[in-house]
Amino acid sequence: MLKRSPMAPAYFPAIKPVAGVELAGQHIGLKKAASERDLMVARLANGTEVAGVLTRSQCPSAPVVWCRRALNGGIARVIIVNSANANAFTGMRGETAVTQTVDAATRLFECSPEEVFVASTGVIGEPLAPDLIPRRLQEVVGDLRPEGWLDAAEAIRTTDTFPKAASADTHIGGTPVRLAGIAKGSGMIAPDMATMLAFVFTDAHIPAGILQKLLRSACDASFNAITVDGDTSTSDTLLLCATGQAEEHPAIASATDSSLKPFRHALLDVCIDLAQQIVRDGEGAQKFVTVNVCGAESQRAARRIGLSIANSPLVKTAIAGEDANWGRIVMAVGKAGEKADRDRLSISIGGVRIAERGEAAADYDEAPVAAHMQGREIDIDVDLGIGHGRATVWTCDLTHRYIDINADYRT
Amino acid sequence: MLKRSPMAPAYFPAIKPVAGVELAGQHIGLKKAASERDLMVARLANGTEVAGVLTRSQCPSAPVVWCRRALNGGIARVIIVNSANANAFTGMRGETAVTQTVDAATRLFECSPEEVFVASTGVIGEPLAPDLIPRRLQEVVGDLRPEGWLDAAEAIRTTDTFPKAASADTHIGGTPVRLAGIAKGSGMIAPDMATMLAFVFTDAHIPAGILQKLLRSACDASFNAITVDGDTSTSDTLLLCATGQAEEHPAIASATDSSLKPFRHALLDVCIDLAQQIVRDGEGAQKFVTVNVCGAESQRAARRIGLSIANSPLVKTAIAGEDANWGRIVMAVGKAGEKADRDRLSISIGGVRIAERGEAAADYDEAPVAAHMQGREIDIDVDLGIGHGRATVWTCDLTHRYIDINADYRT
Repeated sequence: MLKRSPMAPAYFPAIKPVAGVELAGQHIGLKKAASERDLMVARLANGTEVAGVLTRSQCPSAPVVWCRRALNGGIARVIIVNSANANAFTGMRGETAVTQTVDAATRLFECSPEEVFVASTGVIGEPLAPDLIPRRLQEVVGDLRPEGWLDAAEAIRTTDTFPKAASADTHIGGTPVRLAGIAKGSGMIAPDMATMLAFVFTDAHIPAGILQKLLRSACDASFNAITVDGDTSTSDTLLLCATGQAEEHPAIASATDSSLKPFRHALLDVCIDLAQQIVRDGEGAQKFVTVNVCGAESQRAARRIGLSIANSPLVKTAIAGEDANWGRIVMAVGKAGEKADRDRLSISIGGVRIAERGEAAADYDEAPVAAHMQGREIDIDVDLGIGHGRATVWTCDLTHRYIDINADYRT
Repeated sequence: MLKRSPMAPAYFPAIKPVAGVELAGQHIGLKKAASERDLMVARLANGTEVAGVLTRSQCPSAPVVWCRRALNGGIARVIIVNSANANAFTGMRGETAVTQTVDAATRLFECSPEEVFVASTGVIGEPLAPDLIPRRLQEVVGDLRPEGWLDAAEAIRTTDTFPKAASADTHIGGTPVRLAGIAKGSGMIAPDMATMLAFVFTDAHIPAGILQKLLRSACDASFNAITVDGDTSTSDTLLLCATGQAEEHPAIASATDSSLKPFRHALLDVCIDLAQQIVRDGEGAQKFVTVNVCGAESQRAARRIGLSIANSPLVKTAIAGEDANWGRIVMAVGKAGEKADRDRLSISIGGVRIAERGEAAADYDEAPVAAHMQGREIDIDVDLGIGHGRATVWTCDLTHRYIDINADYRT
């Protein structure tokens, strides 16, 4: 087992049930230790609407290919997720494993195949025995319960050092609705998206088409604003399920409906919370880094500059070494390919202005910055000074542990 | 001093003089140890034509800004390069340092300012004392000699663990001409370009406009085909100088002149040799990795896929761990954003077919691949199976030493 991240939350959050959602997580033999859960099942109320964002990889896993098709239906009855095997680049056998799992689920849950969603995470390229999940599914289903959040969050972990969940209570037109979700990281984490799985549930009643717009927007400012190593997985899957089991609330006619405002905020909060937990558990991470970019030519430019900083191995190793090496931040701004003007650029670390107008700040005092660099939470602010584009990106440092973990992942 | 790279050549190559080129390298006080050379000067014969490729960084160093302007003249009399200070993001003071160095050189070499080329490499953001190089220039000039290659190569080193040079003898229309160059790496190495300085000299007589086309083409297949960490420096500078001091050869009317064919090959050879030396000295590198991509939709797609593999921290750490984790290669192909078809993709490592048609090769024998992974030279071949685009990219593994070197570079 990997040592728990020093930035892990003190305890797993208390997640209240979401009406219409039952969860289970069990060990079916994919992970070595019998105590380690490796299959998650979520049962959803009849008529649950679903939206999803999937990896943009050109070599997606078999489960991703399946989900992309199933999302067209907009209805979900069950989500089945295994860890320890990504079922990616497993050729026709990978598709067979998906088909057999889906078939088994349609019988158990009395639903159509397009209502079954699947995801797999773990090693790429090793065949997943097609009969394993079908054989063990019934016993896991027997364990489904509304309080199963921790078991579910445990079952989707790979190199994660802690299980991840978040929730929020909000309302639609005064009617209370709830949001709750689980996620896993923690390498191959980059926008669009990460070896990142996240499943968010709500009891609100929102049609799939609108749910899709809400999810895309929340995803851009959360899961697509984090990076651990700039690598993009074959398996990234984010699903948002709306069971419609809350008390009756005003019907939702569009994603911009004003009665949805609190819900949109709550959804974004939950997604940012989960996304930040993924970064806090980035492989080998010792520091959580927030990169705020403002004054860029556009929002898109700000985001690209932020990601250029957050993905730079030289910036990330300097942070690991607690060195406020702002020259490397300049380098990363310069390489982003977006408009920049050396003589308008300013950089602050930990709120202290280090560089401005193209050179080191005249009155720069390194002591408070050095103290900030020794903390767990590092704030980098970059002002391009040329426009109004702004964006925030989160990342972690690049440490020896990242190499330890990844140099012998399979052994 | 850093430990010499295990992939360093056994000895510094014997470089013969290039008519019209004299070099010197001395210690002027930028590096700490008095034995470490930190200023290089190259004096060029009257009328030397020059071409250059400079960083695409939007925040280039003051010397890069100067060279971009000077290249318009197409004539070089002297190149002055310091290490241990990049003179980048040093505001107006950086420009003053450049101007004073150029002024001093025009007096010593009796040339115009546009015939003086400068480059600086080292820490970003620390002011370079404007009078240091002018004060010490004359004494370094006193040491200029046609055999000064090693001193020059030493003087431009930063974290390089060995000095880098390469040469080739060729001919133009039967007349012997020579090429020789020096270079330095070895972090912030990525296409377009690297904290990479390279200076290549020939005694051929080739006009600057044609020289520029030849250099751009050679650079694309050499310096722009290497990556260490995907970071792009503020200071990258590649210059090609033609002194015209060889015996008379047929006049060159265009870059595609058929009499230039052997010269083009020799130039590419020298550039690839220097570029590969940079990778072999990549910070912390223990393995030299060649990524061959074929069957891509286009040459551009092949190159982007190759760089996606070569830049992936997960691929690079797996190589450091001697793990033939081809799943991560699939991941990197998928994230490149270029057309790929899982079911046509095949991957070989060390010449052994590991994966084909979307899954592990049926007869895959891991033993020879495991043996290959333990060597210093790793070959990865990827066939997309969809087109005729091909490209080769060189990189190194990502090791603990990279983090050691970069986490406390400034301390």
